[in-house]
Amino acid sequence: MTPPPPPLRVHSQTEIMALKEISCNKCFGGSQKVFEHDSVELKCKMKFGIYLPPKAETEKCPVLYWLSGLTCTEQNFITKSGFHQAAAEHGLVVVAPDTSPRGCNIKGEDDSWDFGTGAGFYVDATEDLWKNNYRMYSYIKDELPNLINANFPVDSGRMSISGHSMGGHGALILALKNPGKYKAYDATYIVKSYQGSPLDILIDQGKDDQFLLAGQLLPDNFIAACTEQKIPVVLRLQKGYDHSYYFIATFISDHIRHHAKYLSA
Amino acid sequence: MTPPPPPLRVHSQTEIMALKEISCNKCFGGSQKVFEHDSVELKCKMKFGIYLPPKAETEKCPVLYWLSGLTCTEQNFITKSGFHQAAAEHGLVVVAPDTSPRGCNIKGEDDSWDFGTGAGFYVDATEDLWKNNYRMYSYIKDELPNLINANFPVDSGRMSISGHSMGGHGALILALKNPGKYKAYDATYIVKSYQGSPLDILIDQGKDDQFLLAGQLLPDNFIAACTEQKIPVVLRLQKGYDHSYYFIATFISDHIRHHAKYLSA
Repeated sequence: MTPPPPPLRVHSQTEIMALKEISCNKCFGGSQKVFEHDSVELKCKMKFGIYLPPKAETEKCPVLYWLSGLTCTEQNFITKSGFHQAAAEHGLVVVAPDTSPRGCNIKGEDDSWDFGTGAGFYVDATEDLWKNNYRMYSYIKDELPNLINANFPVDSGRMSISGHSMGGHGALILALKNPGKYKAYDATYIVKSYQGSPLDILIDQGKDDQFLLAGQLLPDNFIAACTEQKIPVVLRLQKGYDHSYYFIATFISDHIRHHAKYLSA
Repeated sequence: MTPPPPPLRVHSQTEIMALKEISCNKCFGGSQKVFEHDSVELKCKMKFGIYLPPKAETEKCPVLYWLSGLTCTEQNFITKSGFHQAAAEHGLVVVAPDTSPRGCNIKGEDDSWDFGTGAGFYVDATEDLWKNNYRMYSYIKDELPNLINANFPVDSGRMSISGHSMGGHGALILALKNPGKYKAYDATYIVKSYQGSPLDILIDQGKDDQFLLAGQLLPDNFIAACTEQKIPVVLRLQKGYDHSYYFIATFISDHIRHHAKYLSA
Protein backbone atom coordinates (compact mmCIF):
# COMPACT_ATOMS: atom_id res chain seq x y z
CA MET A 1 0.00 0.00 0.00
CA THR A 2 3.01 2.36 -0.33
CA PRO A 3 3.39 2.90 -4.05
CA PRO A 4 6.39 4.76 -5.42
CA PRO A 5 5.90 8.41 -6.28
CA PRO A 6 4.82 9.06 -9.87
CA PRO A 7 7.63 9.51 -12.41
CA LEU A 8 8.78 13.12 -12.50
CA ARG A 9 9.54 14.68 -15.84
CA VAL A 10 11.94 17.58 -15.70
CA HIS A 11 10.16 20.80 -16.54
CA SER A 12 11.82 23.73 -18.19
CA GLN A 13 11.42 27.09 -16.53
CA THR A 14 9.37 28.15 -19.57
CA GLU A 15 6.73 25.54 -18.86
CA ILE A 16 6.49 26.51 -15.20
CA MET A 17 6.36 30.21 -15.96
CA ALA A 18 3.59 29.62 -18.48
CA LEU A 19 1.01 29.07 -15.73
CA LYS A 20 -1.37 32.02 -15.90
CA GLU A 21 -3.87 32.67 -13.10
CA ILE A 22 -7.32 33.31 -14.57
CA SER A 23 -9.31 33.63 -11.36
CA CYS A 24 -8.98 33.30 -7.60
CA ASN A 25 -11.90 33.12 -5.14
CA LYS A 26 -11.69 32.45 -1.44
CA CYS A 27 -13.93 29.54 -0.49
CA PHE A 28 -14.28 27.75 2.87
CA GLY A 29 -11.06 29.36 4.07
CA GLY A 30 -9.02 28.18 1.08
CA SER A 31 -8.66 29.38 -2.51
CA GLN A 32 -10.44 28.15 -5.63
CA LYS A 33 -8.21 29.12 -8.54
CA VAL A 34 -8.30 28.60 -12.29
CA PHE A 35 -5.09 28.55 -14.32
CA GLU A 36 -4.32 28.47 -18.03
CA HIS A 37 -1.21 26.94 -19.57
CA ASP A 38 0.17 25.81 -22.91
CA SER A 39 -0.15 22.05 -22.99
CA VAL A 40 2.72 20.12 -24.55
CA GLU A 41 0.64 16.98 -25.00
CA LEU A 42 -2.48 18.64 -26.40
CA LYS A 43 -0.76 21.47 -28.28
CA CYS A 44 -3.29 24.08 -27.19
CA LYS A 45 -4.07 26.33 -24.25
CA MET A 46 -5.74 24.39 -21.42
CA LYS A 47 -7.45 25.51 -18.24
CA PHE A 48 -7.72 23.65 -14.95
CA GLY A 49 -9.28 24.41 -11.58
CA ILE A 50 -7.34 23.87 -8.37
CA TYR A 51 -8.67 24.19 -4.84
CA LEU A 52 -6.07 24.88 -2.17
CA PRO A 53 -7.47 24.12 1.31
CA PRO A 54 -6.46 26.26 4.32
CA LYS A 55 -3.96 23.54 5.33
CA ALA A 56 -2.02 24.15 2.08
CA GLU A 57 -0.86 27.50 3.43
CA THR A 58 1.48 25.79 5.86
CA GLU A 59 2.14 22.29 4.52
CA LYS A 60 2.07 20.02 1.49
CA CYS A 61 -1.30 18.34 1.03
CA PRO A 62 -2.47 15.20 -0.76
CA VAL A 63 -4.18 15.83 -4.08
CA LEU A 64 -7.38 14.45 -5.58
CA TYR A 65 -7.88 14.64 -9.34
CA TRP A 66 -11.50 14.95 -10.45
CA LEU A 67 -12.39 14.06 -14.03
CA SER A 68 -15.63 15.54 -15.34
CA GLY A 69 -18.12 14.13 -17.82
CA LEU A 70 -19.15 14.82 -21.41
CA THR A 71 -19.69 18.49 -22.39
CA CYS A 72 -18.03 19.74 -19.18
CA THR A 73 -15.17 22.20 -18.79
CA GLU A 74 -13.04 22.83 -15.72
CA GLN A 75 -15.93 24.97 -14.41
CA ASN A 76 -18.71 22.43 -13.79
CA PHE A 77 -17.27 20.60 -10.82
CA ILE A 78 -15.86 23.69 -9.11
CA THR A 79 -19.09 25.69 -9.38
CA LYS A 80 -21.78 23.02 -8.95
CA SER A 81 -20.63 20.08 -6.83
CA GLY A 82 -20.26 21.72 -3.44
CA PHE A 83 -17.03 19.77 -2.78
CA HIS A 84 -15.15 22.66 -1.13
CA GLN A 85 -16.35 22.21 2.44
CA ALA A 86 -15.29 18.55 2.63
CA ALA A 87 -11.96 19.25 0.87
CA ALA A 88 -11.25 22.07 3.34
CA GLU A 89 -12.08 19.81 6.30
CA HIS A 90 -9.93 16.92 5.08
CA GLY A 91 -7.07 19.12 3.82
CA LEU A 92 -7.14 17.90 0.22
CA VAL A 93 -6.00 19.82 -2.84
CA VAL A 94 -8.53 19.14 -5.62
CA VAL A 95 -7.57 19.49 -9.29
CA ALA A 96 -10.33 19.68 -11.92
CA PRO A 97 -8.99 19.62 -15.49
CA ASP A 98 -10.91 20.36 -18.69
CA THR A 99 -12.32 17.36 -20.60
CA SER A 100 -10.67 17.79 -24.02
CA PRO A 101 -8.32 19.96 -26.04
CA ARG A 102 -9.85 23.29 -27.07
CA GLY A 103 -9.71 25.33 -30.25
CA CYS A 104 -7.68 22.87 -32.31
CA ASN A 105 -9.85 23.45 -35.39
CA ILE A 106 -9.99 19.77 -36.30
CA LYS A 107 -12.65 19.04 -38.91
CA GLY A 108 -15.75 17.69 -37.16
CA GLU A 109 -14.60 18.30 -33.58
CA ASP A 110 -17.71 20.36 -32.77
CA ASP A 111 -20.26 18.26 -34.67
CA SER A 112 -21.43 16.11 -31.77
CA TRP A 113 -21.87 16.54 -28.01
CA ASP A 114 -20.24 13.18 -27.31
CA PHE A 115 -17.27 13.26 -29.68
CA GLY A 116 -14.47 15.80 -30.02
CA THR A 117 -14.59 19.05 -28.05
CA GLY A 118 -15.77 18.41 -24.47
CA ALA A 119 -15.48 14.68 -25.12
CA GLY A 120 -11.82 13.68 -24.92
CA PHE A 121 -12.66 10.41 -23.12
CA TYR A 122 -9.28 10.47 -21.34
CA VAL A 123 -7.65 8.40 -24.10
CA ASP A 124 -4.74 9.00 -26.50
CA ALA A 125 -6.23 9.02 -29.99
CA THR A 126 -4.65 6.79 -32.65
CA GLU A 127 -6.26 8.05 -35.84
CA ASP A 128 -4.27 10.57 -37.86
CA LEU A 129 -6.80 13.39 -37.70
CA TRP A 130 -6.93 13.31 -33.89
CA LYS A 131 -3.67 11.83 -32.58
CA ASN A 132 -1.75 15.10 -32.58
CA ASN A 133 -4.04 16.85 -30.07
CA TYR A 134 -6.40 14.36 -28.44
CA ARG A 135 -4.00 12.96 -25.84
CA MET A 136 -6.02 13.43 -22.67
CA TYR A 137 -4.73 10.15 -21.18
CA SER A 138 -1.12 11.32 -21.26
CA TYR A 139 -2.13 14.81 -20.20
CA ILE A 140 -3.90 13.57 -17.06
CA LYS A 141 -1.36 10.83 -16.33
CA ASP A 142 1.87 12.87 -16.63
CA GLU A 143 1.78 16.44 -17.85
CA LEU A 144 -0.83 17.80 -15.46
CA PRO A 145 0.45 16.06 -12.28
CA ASN A 146 4.01 17.19 -13.10
CA LEU A 147 2.77 20.73 -13.52
CA ILE A 148 0.83 20.55 -10.26
CA ASN A 149 3.69 18.95 -8.33
CA ALA A 150 6.14 21.59 -9.55
CA ASN A 151 3.98 24.62 -8.80
CA PHE A 152 1.74 23.91 -5.80
CA PRO A 153 2.14 22.70 -2.21
CA VAL A 154 1.17 19.08 -2.88
CA ASP A 155 2.64 15.79 -1.72
CA SER A 156 3.43 14.01 -5.00
CA GLY A 157 3.40 10.63 -3.24
CA ARG A 158 -0.23 10.96 -2.19
CA MET A 159 -2.58 11.33 -5.13
CA SER A 160 -5.99 9.92 -5.83
CA ILE A 161 -8.51 10.01 -8.66
CA SER A 162 -12.27 10.16 -9.09
CA GLY A 163 -14.83 11.33 -11.60
CA HIS A 164 -18.35 11.31 -12.96
CA SER A 165 -19.76 9.61 -16.04
CA MET A 166 -17.10 9.79 -18.81
CA GLY A 167 -14.79 11.02 -16.05
CA GLY A 168 -15.64 8.06 -13.81
CA HIS A 169 -14.54 5.80 -16.63
CA GLY A 170 -11.42 7.91 -17.15
CA ALA A 171 -10.53 7.64 -13.46
CA LEU A 172 -10.86 3.86 -13.55
CA ILE A 173 -8.80 3.49 -16.74
CA LEU A 174 -6.03 5.68 -15.32
CA ALA A 175 -6.03 3.75 -12.04
CA LEU A 176 -6.08 0.31 -13.64
CA LYS A 177 -3.35 1.04 -16.16
CA ASN A 178 -1.06 2.63 -13.57
CA PRO A 179 -1.04 0.37 -10.50
CA GLY A 180 0.17 2.16 -7.41
CA LYS A 181 -0.10 5.64 -8.90
CA TYR A 182 -3.32 6.47 -7.07
CA LYS A 183 -4.26 5.58 -3.48
CA ALA A 184 -8.05 5.14 -3.89
CA TYR A 185 -10.50 5.16 -6.74
CA ASP A 186 -14.11 5.25 -7.69
CA ALA A 187 -15.63 4.79 -11.12
CA THR A 188 -18.83 3.94 -12.89
CA TYR A 189 -17.88 1.63 -15.70
CA ILE A 190 -16.60 -1.81 -16.38
CA VAL A 191 -13.27 -3.46 -15.64
CA LYS A 192 -12.47 -6.96 -16.81
CA SER A 193 -9.12 -7.62 -15.19
CA TYR A 194 -6.65 -6.08 -12.77
CA GLN A 195 -3.34 -7.34 -11.43
CA GLY A 196 -1.95 -4.35 -9.52
CA SER A 197 -1.89 -3.26 -5.90
CA PRO A 198 -5.00 -3.28 -3.70
CA LEU A 199 -7.92 -1.04 -4.61
CA ASP A 200 -10.88 0.18 -2.63
CA ILE A 201 -13.64 1.40 -4.92
CA LEU A 202 -16.69 3.40 -3.94
CA ILE A 203 -19.43 3.96 -6.52
CA ASP A 204 -22.64 5.89 -6.21
CA GLN A 205 -25.19 5.27 -8.94
CA GLY A 206 -28.51 7.09 -9.24
CA LYS A 207 -31.27 4.52 -9.57
CA ASP A 208 -33.29 6.89 -11.79
CA ASP A 209 -30.26 7.90 -13.89
CA GLN A 210 -31.53 8.25 -17.47
CA PHE A 211 -28.36 6.63 -18.85
CA LEU A 212 -28.73 3.70 -16.47
CA LEU A 213 -32.34 3.22 -17.54
CA ALA A 214 -31.20 3.36 -21.18
CA GLY A 215 -28.82 0.45 -20.54
CA GLN A 216 -25.67 2.48 -21.14
CA LEU A 217 -23.94 2.09 -17.76
CA LEU A 218 -24.12 -1.60 -16.79
CA PRO A 219 -22.90 -1.41 -13.16
CA ASP A 220 -23.83 -5.08 -12.61
CA ASN A 221 -21.16 -6.11 -15.10
CA PHE A 222 -18.65 -4.01 -13.23
CA ILE A 223 -19.55 -5.55 -9.88
CA ALA A 224 -19.33 -9.05 -11.38
CA ALA A 225 -15.84 -8.30 -12.73
CA CYS A 226 -14.73 -6.91 -9.36
CA THR A 227 -16.12 -9.91 -7.52
CA GLU A 228 -14.24 -12.26 -9.85
CA GLN A 229 -11.04 -10.26 -9.28
CA LYS A 230 -11.67 -10.03 -5.51
CA ILE A 231 -11.46 -6.22 -5.68
CA PRO A 232 -13.32 -4.52 -2.80
CA VAL A 233 -16.10 -2.43 -4.27
CA VAL A 234 -19.13 -0.76 -2.76
CA LEU A 235 -21.90 0.12 -5.19
CA ARG A 236 -24.60 2.29 -3.66
CA LEU A 237 -27.77 2.47 -5.74
CA GLN A 238 -29.36 5.77 -4.75
CA LYS A 239 -33.12 5.66 -5.12
CA GLY A 240 -34.66 8.56 -7.02
CA TYR A 241 -31.37 10.19 -8.05
CA ASP A 242 -30.43 10.98 -11.65
CA HIS A 243 -27.19 11.78 -13.53
CA SER A 244 -27.00 15.47 -12.61
CA TYR A 245 -24.84 17.66 -10.41
CA TYR A 246 -27.63 17.59 -7.82
CA PHE A 247 -26.79 13.89 -7.48
CA ILE A 248 -23.06 14.61 -7.30
CA ALA A 249 -23.53 17.36 -4.70
CA THR A 250 -25.59 15.05 -2.49
CA PHE A 251 -22.87 12.40 -2.21
CA ILE A 252 -19.58 14.23 -2.86
CA SER A 253 -18.78 14.52 0.86
CA ASP A 254 -18.81 10.74 1.19
CA HIS A 255 -16.36 10.43 -1.70
CA ILE A 256 -14.00 13.08 -0.39
CA ARG A 257 -13.99 11.20 2.94
CA HIS A 258 -13.33 7.91 1.11
CA HIS A 259 -10.26 9.37 -0.60
CA ALA A 260 -9.06 11.19 2.53
CA LYS A 261 -9.05 7.85 4.41
CA TYR A 262 -6.16 6.66 2.22
CA LEU A 263 -4.54 9.98 1.37
CA SER A 264 -4.25 11.13 4.98
CA ALA A 265 -3.34 7.71 6.40
CA MET B 1 -43.31 37.83 17.20
CA THR B 2 -46.43 36.11 15.82
CA PRO B 3 -47.31 38.08 12.72
CA PRO B 4 -50.56 37.45 10.85
CA PRO B 5 -50.34 35.20 7.79
CA PRO B 6 -49.75 37.08 4.53
CA PRO B 7 -52.87 38.30 2.70
CA LEU B 8 -54.27 35.57 0.49
CA ARG B 9 -55.54 36.51 -2.93
CA VAL B 10 -58.06 34.11 -4.38
CA HIS B 11 -56.53 32.21 -7.29
CA SER B 12 -58.58 30.91 -10.17
CA GLN B 13 -58.11 27.28 -11.11
CA THR B 14 -56.55 28.49 -14.35
CA GLU B 15 -53.70 30.15 -12.50
CA ILE B 16 -53.05 27.09 -10.39
CA MET B 17 -53.22 24.73 -13.35
CA ALA B 18 -50.77 26.93 -15.25
CA LEU B 19 -47.83 25.73 -13.14
CA LYS B 20 -45.63 23.73 -15.50
CA GLU B 21 -42.83 21.55 -14.13
CA ILE B 22 -39.64 22.19 -16.12
CA SER B 23 -37.26 19.96 -14.18
CA CYS B 24 -37.05 17.77 -11.09
CA ASN B 25 -33.82 16.47 -9.53
CA LYS B 26 -33.49 14.59 -6.28
CA CYS B 27 -30.99 16.32 -3.99
CA PHE B 28 -30.10 15.54 -0.35
CA GLY B 29 -33.20 13.38 -0.05
CA GLY B 30 -35.58 16.11 -1.28
CA SER B 31 -36.48 17.48 -4.70
CA GLN B 32 -35.08 20.51 -6.50
CA LYS B 33 -37.73 21.53 -9.01
CA VAL B 34 -38.12 24.35 -11.51
CA PHE B 35 -41.57 25.54 -12.57
CA GLU B 36 -42.83 27.95 -15.21
CA HIS B 37 -46.04 29.95 -14.96
CA ASP B 38 -47.80 32.90 -16.57
CA SER B 39 -47.30 35.84 -14.25
CA VAL B 40 -50.26 38.18 -13.79
CA GLU B 41 -48.08 40.98 -12.40
CA LEU B 42 -45.28 40.76 -14.95
CA LYS B 43 -47.38 39.71 -17.95
CA CYS B 44 -44.86 37.15 -19.16
CA LYS B 45 -43.82 33.58 -18.48
CA MET B 46 -41.69 33.32 -15.33
CA LYS B 47 -39.63 30.50 -13.88
CA PHE B 48 -38.81 29.82 -10.25
CA GLY B 49 -36.85 27.14 -8.43
CA ILE B 50 -38.30 25.40 -5.39
CA TYR B 51 -36.52 22.95 -3.12
CA LEU B 52 -38.76 20.57 -1.19
CA PRO B 53 -36.87 18.99 1.72
CA PRO B 54 -37.57 15.37 2.75
CA LYS B 55 -39.77 16.65 5.60
CA ALA B 56 -42.18 18.19 3.03
CA GLU B 57 -43.30 14.69 2.04
CA THR B 58 -45.21 14.33 5.29
CA GLU B 59 -45.87 17.84 6.62
CA LYS B 60 -46.08 21.53 5.79
CA CYS B 61 -42.73 23.27 6.08
CA PRO B 62 -41.66 26.89 6.59
CA VAL B 63 -40.45 28.62 3.45
CA LEU B 64 -37.41 30.80 2.77
CA TYR B 65 -37.44 33.11 -0.26
CA TRP B 66 -34.03 33.76 -1.78
CA LEU B 67 -33.58 36.80 -4.03
CA SER B 68 -30.63 36.66 -6.42
CA GLY B 69 -28.43 39.45 -7.72
CA LEU B 70 -27.92 41.29 -11.01
CA THR B 71 -27.72 39.13 -14.18
CA CYS B 72 -28.97 36.04 -12.34
CA THR B 73 -31.88 33.77 -13.24
CA GLU B 74 -33.61 31.21 -11.02
CA GLN B 75 -30.67 28.87 -11.81
CA ASN B 76 -27.70 30.55 -10.10
CA PHE B 77 -28.65 29.97 -6.49
CA ILE B 78 -29.97 26.45 -6.99
CA THR B 79 -26.90 25.25 -8.92
CA LYS B 80 -24.06 27.13 -7.26
CA SER B 81 -24.75 27.98 -3.62
CA GLY B 82 -24.75 24.51 -2.07
CA PHE B 83 -27.74 25.41 0.13
CA HIS B 84 -29.53 22.05 -0.22
CA GLN B 85 -27.82 20.16 2.61
CA ALA B 86 -28.67 22.79 5.23
CA ALA B 87 -32.23 23.21 3.92
CA ALA B 88 -32.76 19.43 4.07
CA GLU B 89 -31.40 19.30 7.62
CA HIS B 90 -33.56 22.18 8.87
CA GLY B 91 -36.67 21.16 6.91
CA LEU B 92 -37.03 24.42 4.96
CA VAL B 93 -38.67 24.86 1.57
CA VAL B 94 -36.52 27.30 -0.44
CA VAL B 95 -37.99 29.34 -3.29
CA ALA B 96 -35.63 31.03 -5.77
CA PRO B 97 -37.42 33.31 -8.25
CA ASP B 98 -35.99 34.89 -11.39
CA THR B 99 -34.71 38.48 -11.09
CA SER B 100 -36.82 40.28 -13.73
CA PRO B 101 -39.52 39.80 -16.33
CA ARG B 102 -38.31 38.01 -19.45
CA GLY B 103 -38.96 38.47 -23.14
CA CYS B 104 -41.14 41.58 -22.83
CA ASN B 105 -39.44 43.23 -25.83
CA ILE B 106 -39.24 46.63 -24.15
CA LYS B 107 -36.92 49.01 -26.00
CA GLY B 108 -33.54 49.07 -24.25
CA GLU B 109 -34.24 46.23 -21.80
CA ASP B 110 -31.15 44.29 -22.94
CA ASP B 111 -28.78 47.24 -23.37
CA SER B 112 -27.13 47.06 -19.95
CA TRP B 113 -26.20 44.35 -17.45
CA ASP B 114 -27.55 46.39 -14.55
CA PHE B 115 -30.82 47.72 -15.98
CA GLY B 116 -33.76 45.84 -17.50
CA THR B 117 -33.54 42.09 -18.11
CA GLY B 118 -31.86 40.36 -15.17
CA ALA B 119 -32.05 43.62 -13.21
CA GLY B 120 -35.59 44.05 -11.91
CA PHE B 121 -34.35 45.44 -8.58
CA TYR B 122 -37.46 44.09 -6.81
CA VAL B 123 -39.35 47.35 -7.34
CA ASP B 124 -42.57 48.29 -9.14
CA ALA B 125 -41.59 50.60 -12.00
CA THR B 126 -43.38 53.94 -12.34
CA GLU B 127 -42.28 55.11 -15.78
CA ASP B 128 -44.64 54.40 -18.66
CA LEU B 129 -42.26 52.27 -20.67
CA TRP B 130 -41.62 49.87 -17.79
CA LYS B 131 -44.58 50.01 -15.41
CA ASN B 132 -46.65 47.41 -17.25
CA ASN B 133 -44.14 44.57 -16.79
CA TYR B 134 -41.46 45.55 -14.29
CA ARG B 135 -43.42 44.82 -11.10
CA MET B 136 -41.02 42.51 -9.27
CA TYR B 137 -41.93 44.01 -5.87
CA SER B 138 -45.58 42.98 -6.19
CA TYR B 139 -44.60 39.68 -7.77
CA ILE B 140 -42.35 38.70 -4.84
CA LYS B 141 -44.64 40.20 -2.20
CA ASP B 142 -47.96 38.67 -3.29
CA GLU B 143 -48.24 36.72 -6.51
CA LEU B 144 -45.41 34.28 -5.94
CA PRO B 145 -46.16 33.50 -2.24
CA ASN B 146 -49.83 33.00 -3.11
CA LEU B 147 -48.85 30.60 -5.87
CA ILE B 148 -46.46 28.75 -3.55
CA ASN B 149 -48.95 28.59 -0.69
CA ALA B 150 -51.69 27.24 -2.97
CA ASN B 151 -49.60 24.55 -4.64
CA PHE B 152 -46.95 23.27 -2.25
CA PRO B 153 -46.79 21.85 1.30
CA VAL B 154 -45.76 25.10 2.99
CA ASP B 155 -46.89 26.79 6.18
CA SER B 156 -48.01 30.24 4.96
CA GLY B 157 -47.56 31.70 8.46
CA ARG B 158 -43.85 30.93 8.54
CA MET B 159 -41.94 32.65 5.78
CA SER B 160 -38.59 34.35 5.68
CA ILE B 161 -36.49 36.22 3.14
CA SER B 162 -32.84 36.58 2.21
CA GLY B 163 -30.71 37.42 -0.79
CA HIS B 164 -27.41 38.49 -2.27
CA SER B 165 -26.33 41.86 -3.70
CA MET B 166 -29.35 43.37 -5.54
CA GLY B 167 -31.33 40.52 -3.93
CA GLY B 168 -30.05 41.39 -0.46
CA HIS B 169 -31.39 44.89 -0.97
CA GLY B 170 -34.65 43.46 -2.30
CA ALA B 171 -35.02 41.25 0.77
CA LEU B 172 -34.52 44.21 3.08
CA ILE B 173 -36.97 46.43 1.20
CA LEU B 174 -39.63 43.72 1.24
CA ALA B 175 -39.09 43.10 4.94
CA LEU B 176 -39.07 46.76 5.95
CA LYS B 177 -42.16 47.68 3.94
CA ASN B 178 -44.15 44.70 5.21
CA PRO B 179 -43.65 44.44 8.98
CA GLY B 180 -44.52 41.01 10.32
CA LYS B 181 -44.63 39.33 6.93
CA TYR B 182 -41.25 37.66 7.31
CA LYS B 183 -39.77 36.08 10.47
CA ALA B 184 -36.05 36.86 9.90
CA TYR B 185 -34.01 38.81 7.42
CA ASP B 186 -30.57 39.52 6.17
CA ALA B 187 -29.49 42.16 3.69
CA THR B 188 -26.50 44.07 2.50
CA TYR B 189 -27.67 47.62 1.94
CA ILE B 190 -28.88 50.61 3.80
CA VAL B 191 -31.98 51.28 5.89
CA LYS B 192 -32.71 54.67 7.37
CA SER B 193 -35.78 53.97 9.47
CA TYR B 194 -38.00 51.13 10.62
CA GLN B 195 -41.06 51.09 12.87
CA GLY B 196 -42.33 47.49 12.59
CA SER B 197 -41.97 44.33 14.65
CA PRO B 198 -38.58 43.08 15.89
CA LEU B 199 -35.95 42.08 13.37
CA ASP B 200 -32.81 40.00 13.67
CA ILE B 201 -30.46 40.69 10.79
CA LEU B 202 -27.41 38.67 9.82
CA ILE B 203 -25.07 40.03 7.15
CA ASP B 204 -21.95 38.52 5.70
CA GLN B 205 -19.78 40.87 3.69
CA GLY B 206 -16.62 39.83 1.83
CA LYS B 207 -13.82 42.15 2.87
CA ASP B 208 -12.24 41.88 -0.59
CA ASP B 209 -15.57 42.31 -2.41
CA GLN B 210 -14.81 44.42 -5.50
CA PHE B 211 -18.05 46.39 -5.05
CA LEU B 212 -17.20 47.12 -1.43
CA LEU B 213 -13.76 48.34 -2.43
CA ALA B 214 -15.38 50.53 -5.10
CA GLY B 215 -17.50 52.21 -2.43
CA GLN B 216 -20.80 50.89 -3.76
CA LEU B 217 -22.03 48.93 -0.72
CA LEU B 218 -21.54 51.14 2.37
CA PRO B 219 -22.25 48.61 5.13
CA ASP B 220 -21.05 51.09 7.77
CA ASN B 221 -23.99 53.36 6.92
CA PHE B 222 -26.32 50.42 7.33
CA ILE B 223 -24.90 49.49 10.73
CA ALA B 224 -25.14 53.12 11.87
CA ALA B 225 -28.82 53.25 10.86
CA CYS B 226 -29.53 49.97 12.63
CA THR B 227 -27.74 51.16 15.76
CA GLU B 228 -29.79 54.35 15.77
CA GLN B 229 -32.98 52.31 15.35
CA LYS B 230 -31.89 49.74 17.97
CA ILE B 231 -32.31 46.92 15.42
CA PRO B 232 -30.18 43.85 16.25
CA VAL B 233 -27.73 43.31 13.42
CA VAL B 234 -24.62 41.22 13.06
CA LEU B 235 -22.26 42.24 10.28
CA ARG B 236 -19.49 39.75 9.67
CA LEU B 237 -16.64 41.10 7.56
CA GLN B 238 -15.10 38.01 5.96
CA LYS B 239 -11.44 38.52 5.23
CA GLY B 240 -10.32 37.59 1.72
CA TYR B 241 -13.79 36.84 0.35
CA ASP B 242 -15.25 38.52 -2.74
CA HIS B 243 -18.75 38.96 -4.23
CA SER B 244 -19.01 35.53 -5.88
CA TYR B 245 -20.95 32.32 -5.32
CA TYR B 246 -17.83 30.86 -3.70
CA PHE B 247 -18.42 33.42 -0.96
CA ILE B 248 -22.13 32.56 -0.77
CA ALA B 249 -21.45 28.81 -0.66
CA THR B 250 -18.99 29.26 2.21
CA PHE B 251 -21.51 30.97 4.50
CA ILE B 252 -24.94 29.83 3.27
CA SER B 253 -25.25 27.18 6.01
CA ASP B 254 -24.99 29.85 8.69
CA HIS B 255 -27.79 31.83 7.04
CA ILE B 256 -30.07 28.84 6.64
CA ARG B 257 -29.54 28.15 10.36
CA HIS B 258 -30.28 31.80 11.18
CA HIS B 259 -33.62 31.63 9.39
CA ALA B 260 -34.49 28.18 10.74
CA LYS B 261 -34.06 29.50 14.30
CA TYR B 262 -37.16 31.69 13.80
CA LEU B 263 -39.06 29.61 11.25
CA SER B 264 -38.91 26.42 13.27
CA ALA B 265 -39.45 28.07 16.67
